[in-house]
Amino acid sequence: MLPDRIRRVVQRLSRLPGVGEKTALRYAMFLVTADEAIARELGEELMTLHEHVRRCEQCGALAEVRQAERLLCPVCLDPRRDDSLLCVVARVQDMMAIERSQAMPGRYLVLGKLLSPLDGVGPGELPIAELRSRVKAGVKEVILATPPSVDGEATALLLARELSDLGVRLTRLASGVPHGGELEFADQITLGRAIDGRRKLDP
Amino acid sequence: MLPDRIRRVVQRLSRLPGVGEKTALRYAMFLVTADEAIARELGEELMTLHEHVRRCEQCGALAEVRQAERLLCPVCLDPRRDDSLLCVVARVQDMMAIERSQAMPGRYLVLGKLLSPLDGVGPGELPIAELRSRVKAGVKEVILATPPSVDGEATALLLARELSDLGVRLTRLASGVPHGGELEFADQITLGRAIDGRRKLDP
Repeated sequence: MLPDRIRRVVQRLSRLPGVGEKTALRYAMFLVTADEAIARELGEELMTLHEHVRRCEQCGALAEVRQAERLLCPVCLDPRRDDSLLCVVARVQDMMAIERSQAMPGRYLVLGKLLSPLDGVGPGELPIAELRSRVKAGVKEVILATPPSVDGEATALLLARELSDLGVRLTRLASGVPHGGELEFADQITLGRAIDGRRKLDP
Repeated sequence: MLPDRIRRVVQRLSRLPGVGEKTALRYAMFLVTADEAIARELGEELMTLHEHVRRCEQCGALAEVRQAERLLCPVCLDPRRDDSLLCVVARVQDMMAIERSQAMPGRYLVLGKLLSPLDGVGPGELPIAELRSRVKAGVKEVILATPPSVDGEATALLLARELSDLGVRLTRLASGVPHGGELEFADQITLGRAIDGRRKLDP
C-alpha cells in the first residue's frame, strides 16, 4: 500500500536510536504531508553533516569544519578555560550534560568508549597516551567523570593507575542521592555511596 | 558548547511530531557519531522526498512519481479492488491502518481534513464534489470511516447528508470495546456505543 520511496524513508528513519517502525512511519508521514521545506531542509543538513562536523582534534568532542584552522571544538577554542583542570568523560553527551551545569571551568577529553570486557573493549582502545600527554602539558587535576556504572568505575580505576606516576590530583564525581530524589526510592548502592561520601555540615 | 551546525540539525529534527529538544539532540548525536552513510542516506531521501512522492490524483493517498502515467497510488492502480465500495478516511495514516486489517476490499478517498469549527475548517474545505463524482461512477456503498471523535462524527454526518440524494448505501465503522480491551477500563461513551451497536449472536 505504501510507495517504495516511503518504505525506504521509514527504514532509514528507524535506524535512529529508540525509533521503531511505527515511530519511523509517523515521522515519514509527517514529512511527506507537511510543508515541502521541512523534509528538504532536514535532508540538506543531514546530507552534509559529516562534511561539516568532525571530532575535535584535541578533546574528541564535536567541532565544526572551518578553513585554515585546527579542527577544534568551542570549548578547546575558548581562551577563558582553565587549562589546569581536565575532565575525562566517556561520551560527547556526558560532556554536554556537564557543560549545562556550568560547574566545570576546565577542559575535556572524550574517551569515546569505556573499558568493557564483555564487548571486547580493552585498555589498548582507550586514548591513554593522549591523556598522559595532555596531563603533562600542565594539568593539575583530572576529574575522571566516567559514569558510576561497572564499566565506568573500571575505566576510572584504570586511568587513575595509568596517571599515578604524573603527580596529578585525581578526582571522581560525587555519587549519591540526586537533587529532588526521594530517599525512600533510592537503590541501596546509591544510598551506600551517599553515606560513604557524606559531607560535614558547617553551620 | 555545541557547534552551530549541530544546533541547526537539532532544531530541524525537533519539528518531527512528538520530538522535543532532548530527543532531537539524541538523534543528532547518534547521526554525527555513527557511520557517515546513515546521515547521508537519510538526508538524500528526505531532500528529494517531495519530488518523488505526491498525493494520488484519484484518492489523495500517497503515490510515487513515475513518468508517463497518471499519478496514482498502489491501491488506485490495483485492478483487483472492488470499485463499488468506497472508504472515506480523514488521513493517509487511517487508510494505512485499515489496509493493515486486510478487511476492506474496495477503494479509498482521503479527505485530508475533518470539519472543525474551532480550527476554521468548514464544509467548503472538504472534497465533496470529488466524493459525489466518485460515487456517481458506480459506487454502491460508502464507508464513512472518519474517526469516532466529535469532528469525525460531524464530518461523517455532513458527508452522509451530501450523498443522501445519490441512493448509495452509507455505513460507519462499528464503535465499541476494542479487541483485548477490558470492560472495566472502557469509558462510558465507548461502552454506550458498544451496547447500542450490540449484535445478535447466532449459535
